[in-house]
Amino acid sequence: MAYELHYWPGIPGRGEFVRLALEAAGAEYIDVCRGEPQQGLGLPAMLHYLEDASVPRPPFACPFLVDGRTVVGQTAAILLYLGPRLGLVPQREADRLWAHQIQLTIADFVQEVHDLHHPIASSLYYEDQQAEALRRAQDFRRERLPKFMAWFEAVLQRNPGNGAREVPRMVDGRLSYVDLSVFQVVEGLLYALPKATRRVLKKAPGVAALHAGVPRQRRLAAYLASERRLPFNEQGIFRHYPELDA
Amino acid sequence: MAYELHYWPGIPGRGEFVRLALEAAGAEYIDVCRGEPQQGLGLPAMLHYLEDASVPRPPFACPFLVDGRTVVGQTAAILLYLGPRLGLVPQREADRLWAHQIQLTIADFVQEVHDLHHPIASSLYYEDQQAEALRRAQDFRRERLPKFMAWFEAVLQRNPGNGAREVPRMVDGRLSYVDLSVFQVVEGLLYALPKATRRVLKKAPGVAALHAGVPRQRRLAAYLASERRLPFNEQGIFRHYPELDA
Repeated sequence: MAYELHYWPGIPGRGEFVRLALEAAGAEYIDVCRGEPQQGLGLPAMLHYLEDASVPRPPFACPFLVDGRTVVGQTAAILLYLGPRLGLVPQREADRLWAHQIQLTIADFVQEVHDLHHPIASSLYYEDQQAEALRRAQDFRRERLPKFMAWFEAVLQRNPGNGAREVPRMVDGRLSYVDLSVFQVVEGLLYALPKATRRVLKKAPGVAALHAGVPRQRRLAAYLASERRLPFNEQGIFRHYPELDA
Repeated sequence: MAYELHYWPGIPGRGEFVRLALEAAGAEYIDVCRGEPQQGLGLPAMLHYLEDASVPRPPFACPFLVDGRTVVGQTAAILLYLGPRLGLVPQREADRLWAHQIQLTIADFVQEVHDLHHPIASSLYYEDQQAEALRRAQDFRRERLPKFMAWFEAVLQRNPGNGAREVPRMVDGRLSYVDLSVFQVVEGLLYALPKATRRVLKKAPGVAALHAGVPRQRRLAAYLASERRLPFNEQGIFRHYPELDA
């Protein structure tokens, strides 16, 4: 049975971290909200899980994955669940826990990227919190962006065997969902804050090499060239507001 | 061998979610940063893992747990790891995944509580972002606090068997680390925003009953009355600034 991915239809957002894993593994999946309500898909199918009191274990928010009777919310938990099933994480428990730990740190980073343009409230427009966003972006560029990128770089530098690999890996020697997520974060940052991100990537050659190498995987290359890949835009998490970059 | 918990010594913060699990299970553990450097403990022991290039898999931040050669960072990942070992989560994979999913949502909530008083940057003092904090707190009290609490309440209401239990449970019928974390979040909110929290608890009777019932567990009662339990304060995540409450 195909996996069901439930996420907002118009943005890559957090759903993209899951989509990249499904695509890289060639898994069968339904992108529920991008389907037609007449076929039981679309937004109503997603809202059922979030809003109907008949759902015994409701996710707090999307994205969530439905696999038969299992419903899993929280991006990092979805990847924890999918990783072994898609062959995108090593077998050993310690390695899986390490992969998950990195993914949770990526989730924290993504939240900070979101709060760049929404430092006061998600319920307000960017324009109504732009002054605060300008202040937050300054700290993000100076402190947070370099700190997270330096940590990703350290993870790559300390992963044995990366020195001999054309494309470095975050966990062990094979492609994992963590590599896909680091690729996606860098993609998003290059869209949102191209100046600050290019500058910080110069000090993180491993991250830059991973970002350049991941999309060469055959299935991913096909996916990234397809219409299934949604472009970044100013309704999403990674938004390009030139005034926040420098 | 005793577990090592690494966290800032002066605040309950995120470390407390782990400490509550260790204490409720009666596990042997060392609160590393509260020990003496002469005995190989204290802050230097923690900073080794965060800063030394010789650490192969460095946590991004504290809290982290050291169990022999295993180092686990990220509060929710630590509890994912400890849950089965401490008997604080059901056996079934689906139940463990559900517990973890709730814990990750609690982690998101805790981050929002932190950003209440630090909406611009963790690197700045509260006093330097107080105007922004006042705006953020207004949205938090109106939108976010009720939304998270309503979700916890829905989780409790839909957990079969809670109607017949004196103290409701978040996952299945026995005490889990998720119950301990919900207790701690409510404790922290009652300290930080007593007015807003008491108001919202009136609409979440299950959460209120869980919060009242959890500390009756024998080991927890002893812990909460001990000096090992750190009080909330204005260096932590849950801070009482009366101007942010209403």
